[in-house]
Amino acid sequence: MINFALLGAGRIGSMHAGLIAGNPKAKLRYVYDTYQPAAKELADKYGVIAVESVEQILNDDSVDALLIATTTDTHVELIIKGAQAGKAILCEKPIDLSTERVRQCWEQIKDCQVPIQIGFNRRFDPTHAGLQDQLRNGDIGLLQQLIITSRDPDIAPVEYLRHSGGIFRDMIIHDFDMFRFITGEEATEIHAVGSTLIDPELAKIGDVDSVMLTIKTKSGKLCHINGARRCVYGYDQRIEAFGSEGMLQSNNPLPNSVSKSTATGTDSLSVLNPFFIERYQDAYQAQLNSFITSLMTNTPTSPSFTDGMKAQIMADAAQESLANGKPVILE
Amino acid sequence: MINFALLGAGRIGSMHAGLIAGNPKAKLRYVYDTYQPAAKELADKYGVIAVESVEQILNDDSVDALLIATTTDTHVELIIKGAQAGKAILCEKPIDLSTERVRQCWEQIKDCQVPIQIGFNRRFDPTHAGLQDQLRNGDIGLLQQLIITSRDPDIAPVEYLRHSGGIFRDMIIHDFDMFRFITGEEATEIHAVGSTLIDPELAKIGDVDSVMLTIKTKSGKLCHINGARRCVYGYDQRIEAFGSEGMLQSNNPLPNSVSKSTATGTDSLSVLNPFFIERYQDAYQAQLNSFITSLMTNTPTSPSFTDGMKAQIMADAAQESLANGKPVILE
Amino acid sequence: MINFALLGAGRIGSMHAGLIAGNPKAKLRYVYDTYQPAAKELADKYGVIAVESVEQILNDDSVDALLIATTTDTHVELIIKGAQAGKAILCEKPIDLSTERVRQCWEQIKDCQVPIQIGFNRRFDPTHAGLQDQLRNGDIGLLQQLIITSRDPDIAPVEYLRHSGGIFRDMIIHDFDMFRFITGEEATEIHAVGSTLIDPELAKIGDVDSVMLTIKTKSGKLCHINGARRCVYGYDQRIEAFGSEGMLQSNNPLPNSVSKSTATGTDSLSVLNPFFIERYQDAYQAQLNSFITSLMTNTPTSPSFTDGMKAQIMADAAQESLANGKPVILE
Amino acid sequence: MINFALLGAGRIGSMHAGLIAGNPKAKLRYVYDTYQPAAKELADKYGVIAVESVEQILNDDSVDALLIATTTDTHVELIIKGAQAGKAILCEKPIDLSTERVRQCWEQIKDCQVPIQIGFNRRFDPTHAGLQDQLRNGDIGLLQQLIITSRDPDIAPVEYLRHSGGIFRDMIIHDFDMFRFITGEEATEIHAVGSTLIDPELAKIGDVDSVMLTIKTKSGKLCHINGARRCVYGYDQRIEAFGSEGMLQSNNPLPNSVSKSTATGTDSLSVLNPFFIERYQDAYQAQLNSFITSLMTNTPTSPSFTDGMKAQIMADAAQESLANGKPVILE
Repeated sequence: MINFALLGAGRIGSMHAGLIAGNPKAKLRYVYDTYQPAAKELADKYGVIAVESVEQILNDDSVDALLIATTTDTHVELIIKGAQAGKAILCEKPIDLSTERVRQCWEQIKDCQVPIQIGFNRRFDPTHAGLQDQLRNGDIGLLQQLIITSRDPDIAPVEYLRHSGGIFRDMIIHDFDMFRFITGEEATEIHAVGSTLIDPELAKIGDVDSVMLTIKTKSGKLCHINGARRCVYGYDQRIEAFGSEGMLQSNNPLPNSVSKSTATGTDSLSVLNPFFIERYQDAYQAQLNSFITSLMTNTPTSPSFTDGMKAQIMADAAQESLANGKPVILE
Repeated sequence: MINFALLGAGRIGSMHAGLIAGNPKAKLRYVYDTYQPAAKELADKYGVIAVESVEQILNDDSVDALLIATTTDTHVELIIKGAQAGKAILCEKPIDLSTERVRQCWEQIKDCQVPIQIGFNRRFDPTHAGLQDQLRNGDIGLLQQLIITSRDPDIAPVEYLRHSGGIFRDMIIHDFDMFRFITGEEATEIHAVGSTLIDPELAKIGDVDSVMLTIKTKSGKLCHINGARRCVYGYDQRIEAFGSEGMLQSNNPLPNSVSKSTATGTDSLSVLNPFFIERYQDAYQAQLNSFITSLMTNTPTSPSFTDGMKAQIMADAAQESLANGKPVILE
Repeated sequence: MINFALLGAGRIGSMHAGLIAGNPKAKLRYVYDTYQPAAKELADKYGVIAVESVEQILNDDSVDALLIATTTDTHVELIIKGAQAGKAILCEKPIDLSTERVRQCWEQIKDCQVPIQIGFNRRFDPTHAGLQDQLRNGDIGLLQQLIITSRDPDIAPVEYLRHSGGIFRDMIIHDFDMFRFITGEEATEIHAVGSTLIDPELAKIGDVDSVMLTIKTKSGKLCHINGARRCVYGYDQRIEAFGSEGMLQSNNPLPNSVSKSTATGTDSLSVLNPFFIERYQDAYQAQLNSFITSLMTNTPTSPSFTDGMKAQIMADAAQESLANGKPVILE
Repeated sequence: MINFALLGAGRIGSMHAGLIAGNPKAKLRYVYDTYQPAAKELADKYGVIAVESVEQILNDDSVDALLIATTTDTHVELIIKGAQAGKAILCEKPIDLSTERVRQCWEQIKDCQVPIQIGFNRRFDPTHAGLQDQLRNGDIGLLQQLIITSRDPDIAPVEYLRHSGGIFRDMIIHDFDMFRFITGEEATEIHAVGSTLIDPELAKIGDVDSVMLTIKTKSGKLCHINGARRCVYGYDQRIEAFGSEGMLQSNNPLPNSVSKSTATGTDSLSVLNPFFIERYQDAYQAQLNSFITSLMTNTPTSPSFTDGMKAQIMADAAQESLANGKPVILE
């Protein structure tokens, strides 16, 4: 049984609280949030304690693990504190918007020997993970090309996006991790183009809402990612792997399976899942199980802090390519 | 090279004329129709001769084969004449609305030794034939259940239907042949129910527009057929074979493969084929090829006259079951 | 908050225990099973009390509702006791294998005024319920034909089936309820055929493993049900509604959505759900929610005891038709 | 009625001969090929004249149009001769491997006023054209992103590819035309990456077999093209258009529609079409019809010579980007 403290009682924090509470091998002990009423409300729902300071948690030896779901700018500080207090950590992505700060964080915690896992939930999605598994089995021979489609249902307000670090660090970072997860390789070259086709206000803050990337690996594999901040038909998340012996596609699961045929054609009456909490609910659960299993069996957590750092380096490169119009070469 | 005379210059006759003309191993020589202007127009299009009497055709030794596409009530007479003149015959279904007349026809021609093929075109459809082929290969083990869906795009006028012989002899007869083609067995029991749900006028002529049948074979295989005279989304023709090791489905081919995803779901923009000439164009061509090949290689034509007769016996049984509300046992 | 006692700690009882425990508006209080170790184990898992007699539960005024998941032969007695003790009841189907006993049960409880709901879980499946909802909306005009496919993944041992009441009362009863749920009408005629194609041992106990039924309603709607006790590709549960303006299909949801294209074709790598607990997990949850909502808002529970009785009358009729080879007319 | 002379009696020339012969508004008059036995054989099949010199055709006033299906290096000379003789021209793509020669050709013919159409057959494919049509109708709002997948079934021998002009001019040129056809805009920036993942021999001739391109238009639309020289599951040709109000997908049509469900999943038993002649047979026919209609109604042919030239300019830019690793800016 792993005892958890939850840091962050917002939307995604609430989801994690439910998953921990419902997990037979986990126990939720504390909820912390800088906004105390939120922490109190969430803690009450599960009959646990809402604490006023993180220190209360860190000083309690019965707490095994922290689940960090606070705002991004607080991640590094909480990771360092948690690691130094010897707590295992499951931290939402991204580690930080600044890769420099991520590196500094790493310097401070790398000797702490605590298990740290970054919340790249998509690695645990049955469909994406199923594709990766088939690929590893050699079912389509050697991978040659990878096409990742990543479309959010709707764009956040410009005020929020102003502090998001840009589309690559905020949104496409998941796809960079998918690229690494599926190819099993690192990027040697990244080229990004972007446009402001959805919300013209975005141009004022130097961001884009529509992007396409080409990534090349050392062995010559090619990867394309396309991203859009608004997709009217739902949360569109697909992966296509093309190899020497065939193709694997991770298609969108549909919430129901009713179809209707009329004089105008045949319609699937199911729209895609509205957003990540619905789309990736099984993945979030599997992610938690994987973290718990790693702790209980003393095996490495994955994706690791380094995985989180590498996705951010890719995001920086994409941002640079977008800015100067040229591919960026990574060593 | 097989020299053909076409009897019947209506809609389906015109289609056959085009198929014969375009076939590298066939040559269209004559067109005959009781309505001479139709014969003339069609003959002119292909640069062949429109004859005024069938005898002109029967007396010409260079004619190898008749393609009979006249009205149903003339089939028996033409088959007899053609067979006695030694012509090979490809005759549209049904042979006749009266099974008694079909039997009499058989008595008169059975010693003629001419190849006769009945136009059950669906046996040559790549999709239905593909299903049958897989089944014969043992891909789903032993067949246990068969489900046939047969929906016409729209109901014909009551005036036409009055002389059609009823829904079983006019429409479902194709499905009876599919049952025999796919199971490779004969029916031992047929139960039919029907309703007038589409055109209430039909009740006045003692016919129905919506039917369901259950058929049992000697080995205990079960078959369901459902039929409807009007299907707003097109010509719906599906077959499902369920066996000890799996299921085969012959689904509707779609005229195009564009799909559209919007806020209300994902739509296949393709409606089904409008009717049999579009849906079964490949089948009609393959049927003609099969007939020609049989003639050129001196192998039996199939489906045979007997196949045509057996489907009609099933239609009679269905009609009887509908009338008296009980299953009909066939020896 | 509704306080529940669970009667029956077998496979399906365990599932219900988890659903009650995880429901924010429900509280599991007691577990009872004639086999006490099973009750004890399940009760311990959820930190509740395992009782040795049903009376302990019936005498506890804090218990609002019974969830009956015991063996079928005990349902009637428990329903009567529970109803007379004023407990709301959610009882697994079927009420009893004998319609006569069901009627007697009804006589004894009909004045008790307690809410009773029968566990026809499929009414709550998002896909089947979605189809019914679209149909009620008039999306395909007037319903004309209904086709229900019902295939279990594997046949139970003959020893179990000997006491199951036969395929219609044990398995197809769900489909009879679906027929009533979707058409909104009663059967006026039922015809059933069956064969022993899967397990020849079944013939010895006078049962069949493969069935086809035709049902007619007063308004002339036609319904076909096909059922098989073993389906190698999983739990196949589909419904097709054909109407004057189109068709609705409730297709099988797939556990994942990976597809693979190779030189031999494109494969969905997902097999169907293994059986009802996986296939209908959302339905079981929605069923419980519906029951709880009815209790909390004082509105009628549905499907009702009468719904349970009517499905059984249909099963009896099907059994009779199978036995004597003729359709059975229901008033 | 349009009288045609066919130049080139190879594989694609033979296909065109059949289409012309079978077209009710066209008449095949002559066949020419530098290899006379091929011309003779094809001409005999359709009962027309095999000529030994192009001049015989050019001097015959009854010839309305030339269909040029000779080797690429002869296109320019034949176009110039044909145009100067006043013949309408339908010429297979590409016009020439050298854009410089294409420009020179244009200088010589631009005043000839003869209708010239370039054989970008995909514009006439019912599925791709259906997508474009829906897009023009505004069905998905404003186009934002376009994803084109272009995979050939198998790689040609290196000896052939050595003279092909490289993957962009030989293969992806069709996709450049699709980009222009669907966006209705010109490229302002092209970035290409490539690898030799299929046939290592290709590296010796400075070519690649796997490519990804990113294209940007003046209005900021983004387009991705991926191409592969070998695709084991058939000829994979898909287009996805993503817009402000939805997505359109032009999926691969399947040769048949049988599916098989077994214990390992559900398989579409249909592999994709083997190659372009099967996949685009309807498109080739529609292309010819469009050319004939333009001639008979005196309306401009499309796609035009200029369309052919513009696709080649894009191919040159892609080649340059591949060579120097940077995006190429087009005015």
